[in-house]
Amino acid sequence: MKYLPGGLGNITGFSSLGKHIGIKDEGKDFAILYSDTVCNAVAVYTQNKVRGAPLYVTKQHIADHQAQAIVVNSRIANVATGQQGRLNAQKTTELVADELGINPTNVLVASTGIIGLQLPMEKIAVGSKGIKQQLSPDGDFAEAILTTDTHKKEICVEVDGFKIAGVAKGSGMIEPNMATLLVFIVTDADITPDQLQVSLKIGVDKTFNMTSIDTDTSTSDMAILMSNGTVKDVNLKKFQQALDQVCLELTKMIARDGEGVTRLLICEVAGAKTESDAKKVAKSVINSPLVKTAVYGHDPNWGRIMMAIGKSGAEAVDETDAQVWINQEPTVENGTVATNFDAEKLSHILKSNDEITIKIDLGQGQHAATAYGCDMSEEYVKINTEYTT
Amino acid sequence: MKYLPGGLGNITGFSSLGKHIGIKDEGKDFAILYSDTVCNAVAVYTQNKVRGAPLYVTKQHIADHQAQAIVVNSRIANVATGQQGRLNAQKTTELVADELGINPTNVLVASTGIIGLQLPMEKIAVGSKGIKQQLSPDGDFAEAILTTDTHKKEICVEVDGFKIAGVAKGSGMIEPNMATLLVFIVTDADITPDQLQVSLKIGVDKTFNMTSIDTDTSTSDMAILMSNGTVKDVNLKKFQQALDQVCLELTKMIARDGEGVTRLLICEVAGAKTESDAKKVAKSVINSPLVKTAVYGHDPNWGRIMMAIGKSGAEAVDETDAQVWINQEPTVENGTVATNFDAEKLSHILKSNDEITIKIDLGQGQHAATAYGCDMSEEYVKINTEYTT
Repeated sequence: MKYLPGGLGNITGFSSLGKHIGIKDEGKDFAILYSDTVCNAVAVYTQNKVRGAPLYVTKQHIADHQAQAIVVNSRIANVATGQQGRLNAQKTTELVADELGINPTNVLVASTGIIGLQLPMEKIAVGSKGIKQQLSPDGDFAEAILTTDTHKKEICVEVDGFKIAGVAKGSGMIEPNMATLLVFIVTDADITPDQLQVSLKIGVDKTFNMTSIDTDTSTSDMAILMSNGTVKDVNLKKFQQALDQVCLELTKMIARDGEGVTRLLICEVAGAKTESDAKKVAKSVINSPLVKTAVYGHDPNWGRIMMAIGKSGAEAVDETDAQVWINQEPTVENGTVATNFDAEKLSHILKSNDEITIKIDLGQGQHAATAYGCDMSEEYVKINTEYTT
Repeated sequence: MKYLPGGLGNITGFSSLGKHIGIKDEGKDFAILYSDTVCNAVAVYTQNKVRGAPLYVTKQHIADHQAQAIVVNSRIANVATGQQGRLNAQKTTELVADELGINPTNVLVASTGIIGLQLPMEKIAVGSKGIKQQLSPDGDFAEAILTTDTHKKEICVEVDGFKIAGVAKGSGMIEPNMATLLVFIVTDADITPDQLQVSLKIGVDKTFNMTSIDTDTSTSDMAILMSNGTVKDVNLKKFQQALDQVCLELTKMIARDGEGVTRLLICEVAGAKTESDAKKVAKSVINSPLVKTAVYGHDPNWGRIMMAIGKSGAEAVDETDAQVWINQEPTVENGTVATNFDAEKLSHILKSNDEITIKIDLGQGQHAATAYGCDMSEEYVKINTEYTT
């Protein structure tokens, strides 16, 4: 697998743009991704039962597994906006389709930003004018979809002649109501819609769905995968591996970019009796405010990890079987402090690494899972407190 | 129902003490509660699967539903301490029983504090000497069980000639590994053990089990209810009401005393299709870091409340049916901003009240639930970061 610099622009046949149309006070706020041909397309959505209007429109438009363009705006999420919100999302796809000369049902739409505000449709109408001429392989789609992310997130891999490129925004509940995770992945690999759907779900379940910045779930999360099918006879296993890698790298970029975050936190659980148990323990550790603040404070506080294992809701947990390592250092043996536990050394490890891996062996079976998150600093509270609607 | 000043000392037949025996560097760290007669006694425990040694010993000793004394130490939780920890908890009950001249299996034990340290048994042996003479109705049990709580929590109510008194410690994950919720309730009402168990579970389920400071669940939570039975023919319904009230008041005291907490946060959910849905939504709102930081920042950020409703895992949620009030002020109507929403007025309400009630009507059925919590400030992160083992 080869990593290519840049993102979406690596895939021949796709072009994009990112520009300022006045939804934000300044900065790019409007993004278009366009394919020269109609693509196979699939999507997965947030599990939050309160969902933004764009999700309903995109779900309708992608029902036939076909799409040719995506329009995204940042700063306003178009969530909790009632019937008007749905009409606005629909209208946005029509404005874009008109300019691109394609079928509106082949335009998907996503929004990220503040909940409860209506989209400024006048600005979107004006901003949509002339987009076809503004498209380019280097269009700044990845930047225009950001809200309070501190930098853009893009990746491209190449395997056996096919490529997969992805961009994402995330950053974890920085400005209020702005924690949305948006992921757009394109490929030239010729894959059937049914297989695309399966592959996307597999990739997302292991990565984005195992990520938590602060346990809050956005109303607008969406991941879209589009294939223009120009590279034929792709090995499915290799495609899945490449897609998983794209999802994993974007996941890590998102976790690292949470506001106030100083460290990427990974929890690898092994020895679980079931996959469900493994996931529960990994997520419980990643989500524990006490584990997160301990990592931020370089505190090898293994008691908090034991607490998080115990409260996880996993069925098969016996504390006397539990082993824990922090960045490879033995920390807990059989449920109590490891024989050669060296608090000072561990504190130094926590201090000097920006990627902390907590490895847990539950000693109950053969199942494993990994979760991704971040530490928690005063900055997180500060940012989420100071913003006022 | 009449509130009496003070706590445990109001119930004739019970005496207690709280003193410093050197487990903490300074301050009271050792507490005894004693009944002149053997009591009916029941207990409920943490749902964390990693549990402190005292819980195992107390569970054994209370299996016959009889108890005459409780011994509690603060600063060391005796959790994740292996076989030695169990022996130490057992030995503590024996030392205390010896001094009190009672059966060791009638002594219950609880510990709260740091995970992973062994109890200083020498200090406990010396500290236990002479306790019988030190007992008094005004003994400072309520103070000696505290860790980083800022003040003691006690209450007593009287109804129809019977009394129920309770003390608790909580304070919500202030110092690391010290979030333990300990509750001790005594009554003179003559109630059978089976009924006591039912009543305690009902009381705890509605109050302590609906409380969340930071989603982390202690390894040492325990609530004990003892009755010496001197007041006969008690009306069971009135007993339950009084017990519920004692649990509720202690719950509020605990939520208010979380470190860095400036406001008590209550979420009342009505109109849920099932009780489970009501509880899920109430807890989801109380636990959301974004809701908690918004309340701290006086931000009437209703979008975050909608997000928390949607992510709750409740089955029957339709955002267009949802109504939300903040301290009685209409905030959300049918899933979007209320007609007369006044952000400035609501911000003022959030700023000028130290008890904030978010009321939600889901519009799906007749079930209701209430959850208790607190806001979240930079102080919470600071405190949990700066402590180093």
